[in-house]
Amino acid sequence: MKNIALIGSTGSIGTQTLDIIRTHRDEFNLVSIAAGRNIELVLKQIREFSPNVVAVERKQDAEHIQQQVDPAVKVLHGKEGLLEAAVADNADFLMNALVGSLGLEPTLQAMEAGMDIGIANKETLVTAGHLVTEKAKKHQVQLLPVDSEHSAIFQSLEGNRRQEVERLIVTASGGSFRDRSRSELEGVSVEDALKHPNWQMGAKITIDSATMMNKGFEVIEAHWLFDMSYDDIDVVLHKESIIHSLVEYRDKSVLAQLGSPDMRVPIQYAMSYPNRLELNDTERLNLWEIGKLHFEKPDFDRYRCLRYAYEAGRTGGTLPTVLNAANEEAVRHFLNGQITFLSIETHIEEALGRHQTIQHPDLDTILEVDKETREFVSSRIG
Amino acid sequence: MKNIALIGSTGSIGTQTLDIIRTHRDEFNLVSIAAGRNIELVLKQIREFSPNVVAVERKQDAEHIQQQVDPAVKVLHGKEGLLEAAVADNADFLMNALVGSLGLEPTLQAMEAGMDIGIANKETLVTAGHLVTEKAKKHQVQLLPVDSEHSAIFQSLEGNRRQEVERLIVTASGGSFRDRSRSELEGVSVEDALKHPNWQMGAKITIDSATMMNKGFEVIEAHWLFDMSYDDIDVVLHKESIIHSLVEYRDKSVLAQLGSPDMRVPIQYAMSYPNRLELNDTERLNLWEIGKLHFEKPDFDRYRCLRYAYEAGRTGGTLPTVLNAANEEAVRHFLNGQITFLSIETHIEEALGRHQTIQHPDLDTILEVDKETREFVSSRIG
Repeated sequence: MKNIALIGSTGSIGTQTLDIIRTHRDEFNLVSIAAGRNIELVLKQIREFSPNVVAVERKQDAEHIQQQVDPAVKVLHGKEGLLEAAVADNADFLMNALVGSLGLEPTLQAMEAGMDIGIANKETLVTAGHLVTEKAKKHQVQLLPVDSEHSAIFQSLEGNRRQEVERLIVTASGGSFRDRSRSELEGVSVEDALKHPNWQMGAKITIDSATMMNKGFEVIEAHWLFDMSYDDIDVVLHKESIIHSLVEYRDKSVLAQLGSPDMRVPIQYAMSYPNRLELNDTERLNLWEIGKLHFEKPDFDRYRCLRYAYEAGRTGGTLPTVLNAANEEAVRHFLNGQITFLSIETHIEEALGRHQTIQHPDLDTILEVDKETREFVSSRIG
Repeated sequence: MKNIALIGSTGSIGTQTLDIIRTHRDEFNLVSIAAGRNIELVLKQIREFSPNVVAVERKQDAEHIQQQVDPAVKVLHGKEGLLEAAVADNADFLMNALVGSLGLEPTLQAMEAGMDIGIANKETLVTAGHLVTEKAKKHQVQLLPVDSEHSAIFQSLEGNRRQEVERLIVTASGGSFRDRSRSELEGVSVEDALKHPNWQMGAKITIDSATMMNKGFEVIEAHWLFDMSYDDIDVVLHKESIIHSLVEYRDKSVLAQLGSPDMRVPIQYAMSYPNRLELNDTERLNLWEIGKLHFEKPDFDRYRCLRYAYEAGRTGGTLPTVLNAANEEAVRHFLNGQITFLSIETHIEEALGRHQTIQHPDLDTILEVDKETREFVSSRIG
């Protein structure tokens, strides 16, 4: 029985994590959840899964929940509440399904507590990959990727020697605007941007897919998770999202993980690793039903965010923190209807251009740069 | 340093095995070779690799070779010579690159001698899979597949638990006539049949690819090598031969091995397992250069040999021996210009139809059924 702490329980990855726990009650036990403001759903989750610890964003919501549930349930709020939920008593495994750099500190604390981490929160690795991977080594805990791409790479590495790996190939669907040229992106709506062709995901990541910043983040994550040089990480456009990513070895043999697009597969694998559990109600992959798989080289002028990510990753230090913070702010303003789709890129480029990179930043420096970047981008939007 | 015995040294797999040894002299040492009648090539191989034991088919060829080479080299002939070469002193590993059921006895003897086997000779498993796999277990030796399909499955199983496997998916190029209907196969020439679109291989296996009997044999091999029921082995037509085969797990995650078609990749992996060695002069797989991969469900009426193979495999006992022997004879007569392409199928169907299957046959029974089937097919051709 694995005791699971789940932060980000009301989002897309969070609710799918609960699906997995629901179908494997004999394997997993939910000890804590943390969420933002979706209080109705939090109450439902408490009734169904009886966690010991619950954290929400605001004090008044915590008080409201505490009145509704068994007094034995500890209901907390704010950043302290989130951190306590992440390392709740007896938890063996933290599923970090938060969105944004908010996910960094809980990850670090859970690693200090000796917990393995299911890392769906990509900003953690983008913004502080060096801190996270150092700490994982020091405390001998495992970082289990939940992204379909990194899970595919992780699965394609199992049973092989890391020093025999020559290249990682990350596949990209191309997002909601993959069939449009740059000029056709002028004035696209938020609604259009939210229509991802293959995956049902949260709003932030769906926009990041449309700009390909999501793929850029994944390249940076892959660099940290698998200790690979940026020169040895390629991106290939693959619009069907059937091959989830690939690993090339020094004998030029390539291993890949495939499947119908269903996030529960990588979520469950991170939770059940090194075992595989049944997952019966997902679609079986029959390649003859799909018929064709397509591949294309991405154009870095068309997808500028991908270029920015490689550049920020190669420079390292605090620059990926700027990349992530500027992107979070710009996407937030785009979703609020305050800026256009293409100006997401412009704001990121501006933020990267003015930043003086600090190498080997500690956590305080990262949090400071994160905050300062957000303020800068917000001030430009006004 | 691994000491290699190589039987079938002058064929396609044999010469490519020597390519691998040539580029990894510090890893591999050739101790013996066995070949048929290509004496000039055998002499060249002796001069380059200095094996201790050499076996050829005919006595007069053995005598001729003995005169030309260092007297320390032991030159043998016939079946006894072949068996002695297979288990030559100090050999750790037998690469069985023979074509046809001739490869069965050397495999069994090498396993008794505690050697791991690189199994390129598919007829060994088709004709006596139960004997070979039992013996491998008893003597705790490994059967390392050399076929690109089985190597792909083997690689996709590494680091995973066998009981978590749900299905094997074997890819098939479709062979030289994949774009022709059955009526367009009337009167095709030997020359046309020998034009395989993707792979450079020997004549027998190229014809077996055109009839898809090769894929049928691979299904039977996969059944034995990976202990899977025939219901859980699928075949998918994939004309580019880039995905070499796939494994589906119970969480519906699919692992696959891919690469540009180059037999040296699986040959080297069988020899270097569990390590991977450099293979620099092979083509790197860049999916964007290929652009599209195609998949189709095979039609068992179009490819009757595939149907016969599933039927013979499911029935088991001596029936796969009949399948293989009838096919070997029919293909031999087709290559000699004595029968038409489509009548290969007719002869196999006839031989299968008249046979009274014996379950759990021993080696003598298998050899007897093999001989008797060949005589029957030959007598029908007359």
